[in-house]
Amino acid sequence: MTSDEIAVLADHLRAVLGADAVIDDHQRLRTYECDGLAHYKAVPALAVLPDDTAGIVETVRACARAGVPFVARGSGTGLSGGALPRTDGVLIVTSRLWNILEIDPANQRAVLQPGVINLDVTRAAKAYGYYYAPDPSSQQICSIGGNVAENSGGAHCLKYGFTTNHVTGLEFVAPDGEIVRLGGKAPDATGYDLVGAIVGSEGTLGIATEVTVRLVRLPEAVRTLLAGFAGTDDAGEATSAIIGGGVVPAAMEMMDALAIEAAEAATHCDYPQGAGAVLIVELDGPEGEVERQFAEVERHCRAAGAFEIRIAKDDAERALFWKGRKSAFAAVGRISPDYIVQDGVIPRTALSEVLGRIAELSEATGVRVANVFHAGDGNLHPLVLFDDGVPGEAERAEEVSAAILDLCITHGGSITGEHGVGSDKAKYMPRMFSESDLDTMQLVRCAFDPAGLANPGKVFPTPRLCGEVPGRHRGAHPLQEAGIAEVF
Amino acid sequence: MTSDEIAVLADHLRAVLGADAVIDDHQRLRTYECDGLAHYKAVPALAVLPDDTAGIVETVRACARAGVPFVARGSGTGLSGGALPRTDGVLIVTSRLWNILEIDPANQRAVLQPGVINLDVTRAAKAYGYYYAPDPSSQQICSIGGNVAENSGGAHCLKYGFTTNHVTGLEFVAPDGEIVRLGGKAPDATGYDLVGAIVGSEGTLGIATEVTVRLVRLPEAVRTLLAGFAGTDDAGEATSAIIGGGVVPAAMEMMDALAIEAAEAATHCDYPQGAGAVLIVELDGPEGEVERQFAEVERHCRAAGAFEIRIAKDDAERALFWKGRKSAFAAVGRISPDYIVQDGVIPRTALSEVLGRIAELSEATGVRVANVFHAGDGNLHPLVLFDDGVPGEAERAEEVSAAILDLCITHGGSITGEHGVGSDKAKYMPRMFSESDLDTMQLVRCAFDPAGLANPGKVFPTPRLCGEVPGRHRGAHPLQEAGIAEVF
Repeated sequence: MTSDEIAVLADHLRAVLGADAVIDDHQRLRTYECDGLAHYKAVPALAVLPDDTAGIVETVRACARAGVPFVARGSGTGLSGGALPRTDGVLIVTSRLWNILEIDPANQRAVLQPGVINLDVTRAAKAYGYYYAPDPSSQQICSIGGNVAENSGGAHCLKYGFTTNHVTGLEFVAPDGEIVRLGGKAPDATGYDLVGAIVGSEGTLGIATEVTVRLVRLPEAVRTLLAGFAGTDDAGEATSAIIGGGVVPAAMEMMDALAIEAAEAATHCDYPQGAGAVLIVELDGPEGEVERQFAEVERHCRAAGAFEIRIAKDDAERALFWKGRKSAFAAVGRISPDYIVQDGVIPRTALSEVLGRIAELSEATGVRVANVFHAGDGNLHPLVLFDDGVPGEAERAEEVSAAILDLCITHGGSITGEHGVGSDKAKYMPRMFSESDLDTMQLVRCAFDPAGLANPGKVFPTPRLCGEVPGRHRGAHPLQEAGIAEVF
Repeated sequence: MTSDEIAVLADHLRAVLGADAVIDDHQRLRTYECDGLAHYKAVPALAVLPDDTAGIVETVRACARAGVPFVARGSGTGLSGGALPRTDGVLIVTSRLWNILEIDPANQRAVLQPGVINLDVTRAAKAYGYYYAPDPSSQQICSIGGNVAENSGGAHCLKYGFTTNHVTGLEFVAPDGEIVRLGGKAPDATGYDLVGAIVGSEGTLGIATEVTVRLVRLPEAVRTLLAGFAGTDDAGEATSAIIGGGVVPAAMEMMDALAIEAAEAATHCDYPQGAGAVLIVELDGPEGEVERQFAEVERHCRAAGAFEIRIAKDDAERALFWKGRKSAFAAVGRISPDYIVQDGVIPRTALSEVLGRIAELSEATGVRVANVFHAGDGNLHPLVLFDDGVPGEAERAEEVSAAILDLCITHGGSITGEHGVGSDKAKYMPRMFSESDLDTMQLVRCAFDPAGLANPGKVFPTPRLCGEVPGRHRGAHPLQEAGIAEVF
């Protein structure tokens, strides 16, 4: 896109949406050059901040007509670069669509605009005795639209499921500018369940403009325990015994020695002295059930060799237990100048084996790895430490990080648990999916977005030519009109 | 397809799959002329019963090459005509793929072939302390493949969710004969969540050949209560109070006076004398929780006006409570020569209003309607009674049945809760979805099945021309090779 073409698009959108909805000043645009995965950067050609669905439609239509790629962005907290802009494209920011449209306690649903902050849903529902269950660590700032795009998880998704398990209806703007409504308040969708396909599609199928989510009853009781173990093998054994015994904790989080060291340095969380691993287990539910299961959890921890068990006596102590865990990623900055946050999944049963292999990898390469993870559902977050100032370290860290994903795949797991594929992991997709599997996904992509304008370059390593497409608009293709023969 | 062409196809499949896997005798083919929705009938041109995935691939490929439509069938218990054959097509029966490939209690998963019977999964998992939660009334005979196709529900889906909430991985044969694997044992899929889109797509996107499902821990305690009320308003009030109070029963089923009359006539279930409505509420979970919540349920029932409450003292009495409910559809045959089983969803809060409107409809038209429903999640099963021997009655019953669906739609619900769209309800889809919504679904259909050979005529009222398609095989289209220009 030439700067003249950008100017024409900017003028058009300013006329339709108002001057303050369009940013074309390069300095101001730099605010948006990356999301939470800060090592990829790209300043968009234009940023647009519509304040309603009609504004999103206008912007998407203008992009479609001009053959310009667009990327949607919520709060920009994603960790896989899903909201990384295109230098030749428009960034559509949804933060001004921040209204909670409805809290419907009788049907246990909330209807939200995409820019609503995750935690604000719980705040609004609390008065009725409900909350919104999926809780990414960034929940104080991340947006529902971003959660939908990335199918975000969180510590409490072990018991309650991911974003996809909580979205029952969607209104979204397809890449041709059409408004499509799918699902609703009913628990199950009629026709193809495209709500599920759109949740987690990382903005490549359109932009959500209204999201209907389940609300979950606030639990009667919450109890939290922190156990110190000699090492991750023991803590892993406790994890298996707890789940195997039929208890599904609200959350079950593990940290290894290096992660504990980092957390101590940053937050003085005072975890058990000399622990090679800590396990945080939180139970919620009816008082009687929680109490009985809590005794079981304690028993399993002791049987697996826990040398110290602390039980939070109030919300303040519970907050302290979580403080170390929730700040672990940032805390690693205290013990290493740079680090990669990896995100992979393994079957719970392979935990001990995979942690052993990660330790071997670390030893063989000299690259330190701190492990923080959602132990209950096998979602690993290895933090691969390096110093960008030392030549070769970044590359070695990347190699170790990739090798860890390989371990996840070979153990029957996945290359991402909750952070998404985004810009970062598209290259790993062929290690997990056959050409035919990926092609099937891209056929769906082509169905929604034949011109490949919606967040191109994300999720799929090699864009697919969509050929002559069965699109809604049967006239000449916008990119063909623009004289561009090959799409993507 | 001419009879010569059928013979060529039959010979080819016999040579590849063995003689006993191919049925082309018209008398034997009549076995397959309908599924559970017996008022639509069509004898297939050919039935094929492969005994492995390779056999399914061979059959689908042969159909694709010949441009012949195919329909997949499991046990044929579906109630929306989803497995209704095509007289010009091949019926692919999955019942010989009946192996349970793996029970993996450590990861709480089972890996199943599509012909496995629903209840057999629970039987196999029981020894490990687990079961498979979705329980259609036909669970003794219906197949997992059929459950996946129709996204089947059941009485216990209120607490545990539908089939789609229990399938984590799928291998399926796409309409071009490619094998595609999506998801796995991990709780969340990477890339597009097409597992969710395929579950409930009623055989229009391909044929599942391997299904990975969650296993759920057998509950420690189960308690069941049956309450008699003066009418459905009172029973509905109890339903709202129970859910509103934060209890999620494993099942909560309601029957009205006419449904009770039918059940009594057929099963002598001895429901409370003079009840205008009965409510069956089942709780399961940890002993202490069940006991406490059970007391609450009882209290809510009494407060809403229950004049008799019975508590099952053992499994035998529990079975008796359920006998009346589970045989209700068939029992209606005792009080009416013919009936339509309707299946719609409304928000729970609209229950009383919609039941009132159904009663008005019934009064105004003279068409009797018995109501049996999953009260907890607003899934209505009105049974519309008629006598096919009386001219005009069938048509009037159809009209009332359609009017009930309209009520569901206007109250923010859905035209099907768990039986699927199939052949029966495709015509109602435009009352629920805009042209743009339906078009979006059909774009996905075109992506998977550009030639429209996989179960054509189901789900969508008006087939979409897929145009030049982005299919995997970029040569001439099979139907074009066959000299047929317009697809569908």
